Amino acid sequence: MNPILAYLGPEGSFSAQASRQYADRATTSLELRPYPTITAIFAAIAEQEANFALVPAENSIEGSVNLTMDLLVQDSTLYIRGEMILPIRHHLLSRASDLSQITQVYSHPQALAQCRSFLSTYLKHATQIAANSTAEAARLIAHGEPNQAAISSEDCAAYYQLPLIATEIADYANNETRFLLIGREPLSCTNHKADHNTAYKTSLILDLKKDHPGGLYQVLGLFAQENINLTRIESRPSKAALGKYLFFIDCEGSTAHPSLQRVLENLSSVTASYRNLGSYNFLPLP
Amino acid sequence: MNPILAYLGPEGSFSAQASRQYADRATTSLELRPYPTITAIFAAIAEQEANFALVPAENSIEGSVNLTMDLLVQDSTLYIRGEMILPIRHHLLSRASDLSQITQVYSHPQALAQCRSFLSTYLKHATQIAANSTAEAARLIAHGEPNQAAISSEDCAAYYQLPLIATEIADYANNETRFLLIGREPLSCTNHKADHNTAYKTSLILDLKKDHPGGLYQVLGLFAQENINLTRIESRPSKAALGKYLFFIDCEGSTAHPSLQRVLENLSSVTASYRNLGSYNFLPLP
Repeated sequence: MNPILAYLGPEGSFSAQASRQYADRATTSLELRPYPTITAIFAAIAEQEANFALVPAENSIEGSVNLTMDLLVQDSTLYIRGEMILPIRHHLLSRASDLSQITQVYSHPQALAQCRSFLSTYLKHATQIAANSTAEAARLIAHGEPNQAAISSEDCAAYYQLPLIATEIADYANNETRFLLIGREPLSCTNHKADHNTAYKTSLILDLKKDHPGGLYQVLGLFAQENINLTRIESRPSKAALGKYLFFIDCEGSTAHPSLQRVLENLSSVTASYRNLGSYNFLPLP
Repeated sequence: MNPILAYLGPEGSFSAQASRQYADRATTSLELRPYPTITAIFAAIAEQEANFALVPAENSIEGSVNLTMDLLVQDSTLYIRGEMILPIRHHLLSRASDLSQITQVYSHPQALAQCRSFLSTYLKHATQIAANSTAEAARLIAHGEPNQAAISSEDCAAYYQLPLIATEIADYANNETRFLLIGREPLSCTNHKADHNTAYKTSLILDLKKDHPGGLYQVLGLFAQENINLTRIESRPSKAALGKYLFFIDCEGSTAHPSLQRVLENLSSVTASYRNLGSYNFLPLP
């Protein structure tokens, strides 16, 4: 039986695209299985229904996918095994003969937000209607009326046989989403090069001892001292109270490298707790 | 004519509650005016259609309201003049005689996410349907069927005459939203106490010179050196490319205080640019 790769459906979603691209490049054959929510994906991995999952983690325009970050905090048995970047292109799908006919635009609130300029220029009087995903938006109008449109992907246009009435309508050109491959075990670091290999990244979740000022400054000092670059630092509410945060840090290098090992040894003394989500690189094999 | 306070409608929204509370406490009479989106609110302030706005900025469970943060970056003529905290309580509104009758649950995706445990325990088989706001969810089911429910507020239950079939259904008890009062001019700091007054806060947006490691460490060092507490640090995508960020920093104290003035003087040398959004405290008068 092939290992199962869980992804966020339905068919035509950006997650489906990413999963297919990943499966095509993996040396092991994978069975792709769609799930309706990110929560369901994490549950499937935890309950061993699926072996791996490719989950959206961060978008270049919208920032972190909060639910993915929060579920990584909640389930301390999961690890990151790889990452991949997918370019995101938003198009307008509709059976309308021209834009002036359109009175309703369906999409995920983030996609609607990413196409603000286009919508306020060409579809000022159309009602914006929230959908659970850009793929769902296409599905909702697939059997609808010509006054309806969906902001969705080229894949969805093909799948639901909807014409592309306007292409590349997003406000920003550099729209990319970073996906993480997660599983129940970390990648083994024994074959990572022992020298400072920037192809590897390590992800950590930190719970600082007290208020930010000193705490975060001390943490960043540990990395600076070892000349380790941080590629990302992000705060998330601890959910205990407004103003209390956890920090997500991604840094260059693998824990196979002594300098990062020294940082981790010292992290315990400057944090209340921390978790190592694993060392990984682009598109590793399962 | 009274000054106009813009807020995120419709009637029954948490923003409407916050605006009413604020208007009740303000010494000046304010005219409250609802807008359909946060984008429309910022446009109303920029075009002098409204004098002030109360916008949601951060939630204790979900984190920052990205759109508000991004619009503060985009419009460099706006300032923060105050903040207030509103407790958020999610309830289930429905005409169903009991939970088992419910097959559709409407709400804003964040509210659906905040009630994950309740939904998976009691409404496992109900379809979750995205709405533009918790208030819109109530409006959508107001004239609907008993198999429909909305996650929404007590105010909306009263406004749309919908029964509360389950109360306080959110996963976390400490659910609060922080609102910012924005306007076209910063508050004058001349009457802020010149000593270190922790009742004041100052908000900054930083564009670091290069990659994070050194840059952010240097910035935090400036605050640490002056013993100034940071109450929040948050990264947002710069939208130029994945992995490039702007930083939002809130610190204690007013720019009337010499120690914060020294930090600001030195910030120019360790950042590509920064913007001072103003010094403010809880519920200041317009």
